[in-house]
Amino acid sequence: MANDTLAGNLRLGAIPRQQVSHTALVNAVEGTLADFLTPQIAMLDAIDPSLGGFARTARDLVMAGGKRLRPTFAYWGWRGVAGAGGNAEAVLPALGALELMHTFALVHDDLMDDSATRRGRPTAHRIFGARHGERFGSSAAVLIGDLCLVWADQLLARTPLPAATLLEVRARYDRMRIEAVAGQYLDVLGETDPASWSVDRALVVARHKTASYTVQWPLDFGLALAGTDDPEVAEAYRVYGTTVGEAFQLRDDLLGVYGDPAVTGKPAGDDLRTGKPTTLLMLARRMATPAQLGELDTAGIGRKAEIVAETGAPARVEEMIRARVAEGLTALADAPIETEARSVLVELATVATQRPA
Amino acid sequence: MANDTLAGNLRLGAIPRQQVSHTALVNAVEGTLADFLTPQIAMLDAIDPSLGGFARTARDLVMAGGKRLRPTFAYWGWRGVAGAGGNAEAVLPALGALELMHTFALVHDDLMDDSATRRGRPTAHRIFGARHGERFGSSAAVLIGDLCLVWADQLLARTPLPAATLLEVRARYDRMRIEAVAGQYLDVLGETDPASWSVDRALVVARHKTASYTVQWPLDFGLALAGTDDPEVAEAYRVYGTTVGEAFQLRDDLLGVYGDPAVTGKPAGDDLRTGKPTTLLMLARRMATPAQLGELDTAGIGRKAEIVAETGAPARVEEMIRARVAEGLTALADAPIETEARSVLVELATVATQRPA
Repeated sequence: MANDTLAGNLRLGAIPRQQVSHTALVNAVEGTLADFLTPQIAMLDAIDPSLGGFARTARDLVMAGGKRLRPTFAYWGWRGVAGAGGNAEAVLPALGALELMHTFALVHDDLMDDSATRRGRPTAHRIFGARHGERFGSSAAVLIGDLCLVWADQLLARTPLPAATLLEVRARYDRMRIEAVAGQYLDVLGETDPASWSVDRALVVARHKTASYTVQWPLDFGLALAGTDDPEVAEAYRVYGTTVGEAFQLRDDLLGVYGDPAVTGKPAGDDLRTGKPTTLLMLARRMATPAQLGELDTAGIGRKAEIVAETGAPARVEEMIRARVAEGLTALADAPIETEARSVLVELATVATQRPA
Repeated sequence: MANDTLAGNLRLGAIPRQQVSHTALVNAVEGTLADFLTPQIAMLDAIDPSLGGFARTARDLVMAGGKRLRPTFAYWGWRGVAGAGGNAEAVLPALGALELMHTFALVHDDLMDDSATRRGRPTAHRIFGARHGERFGSSAAVLIGDLCLVWADQLLARTPLPAATLLEVRARYDRMRIEAVAGQYLDVLGETDPASWSVDRALVVARHKTASYTVQWPLDFGLALAGTDDPEVAEAYRVYGTTVGEAFQLRDDLLGVYGDPAVTGKPAGDDLRTGKPTTLLMLARRMATPAQLGELDTAGIGRKAEIVAETGAPARVEEMIRARVAEGLTALADAPIETEARSVLVELATVATQRPA
């Protein structure tokens, strides 16, 4: 039955049963999101046309693309246990919810960091700020994030799975949300006093803000969607999720300084501008000579990036990424999961940590 | 059994079964909140002590008092159908969730309005702003609100009621959240261009931002908690909720200009300062002579309050409040609900619309 549903569906119908391409998965998640959002927008439009415009801006931010990493990890976490015969249609609302929740986090984070662009487009607070000034832009961005978070919950609640399964899924989802908020608080706190920060504390932030939120909890969320709590799989996912998630954040640190804005969709050297105490920059301070340390505090952004490279910190971070990915892949190697899910997760570990954006 | 549970509970145990005093209800809701928040804070404290401090500030804002109107309306909405024999213990988590959700809305609203105090204490963004500057204060307030919204969901999910009942409850809860966000967007949009606003549009904002969020949806939420969809009760609650809710907002408009800060806990003339296009102020503009209108645009806050009074708008708003409350009470008079719930709802209509704060 599950396969019939999958095969009979227009959006997932063209996908060979044994091999779900990343594009097909992203299309299916985006189709679910679009179907969910249309009546939501119509409902708000009916109250006041300006609310329709507000909701459409939220939708455009959700649909603007991005890597869709969280639904992808959740899908393969589910698939590893459910196998190719599982009912993928039934989990699509839950996968879409993760992406709505991620838009909430991005919109609020971008406001806090005053980032101008995201995915190559203006951020929410800049879009609204251009209409009625900065103060209005900030308020509207807070509300766009709030709206996306509520939408995420609504979509999650529509996942057609048994109540007991959904309860477990929701427990993971809540933990993911709490960690995303907590990690972001540590992030903004770190910027108030980077000098008191350390490599260890930067890694704690990375672990809670990104690693668990991007990889570990989505995988665990997928496992819960499959309605199982196989301890062997859970442990393999935990190790893979933590290590690959940390490696993902370390790559982000490197991209935050050396990424190409045309590829990342974000301004160059954003982390150097905000003074975010990332693991990369904390390591650079620790490895710097006294002369380099002095120059780091006063140099412009371009020169700062050069000094960080001269300390040897980027090479060290590359080593940390390699070591973590290797540990994650080892944990996955013997896990009792579907062969195809394993090979995609192996591939994803590389994609997520060697990415150019 | 339900009565035994109620009688055997420490927090609700001292309450005569037929008469739940407002204080006992508030204590029971606050006890539920405190019990829920303690392990949440411990979990965050264990990640990083600064997260424990962050979470404790959120808890203090939740526990700082306030009228607890939303849980109160929800309780009596439930009680009207469930009767004195209903299991009040079972609905306490859901009532607590409404209050956590309300803290989310207040913290984000106060940030957008840059309100300095709430319930006589500094607002979240001011508390954090005093520690590390205004920018950090804003970011932390966004995150405190986010945390409270996630906590609200977690607590709601713990309501020990059948899954089908909780699904209905959640549908109301989601609608309530969407309307609160939408109403707040209209609110901040109104401030960008008050001149283009109107009495009618101010009433639309009042209806969605406050009326439905404070009275109508909490009552309906309570009805759903009782696991019933009796159309007669639903209609009576809808009319009562809309009218009393609007009257509540109209009282708020008057308090926003003429309220005593020592009683309201908010600065005097806050609405005049921000230029919020409330029904009161829109009416004042419509009723003003050309001379009064000219002076309204240029006068200081104290003089503005006098001019508004001279236009006759406050007396008109008092009439609107009376008419609405009367309509609400008429709808309630014949509704098939418990006698005591009816008499408390009658009383609450007065308390909520004639209040000094």
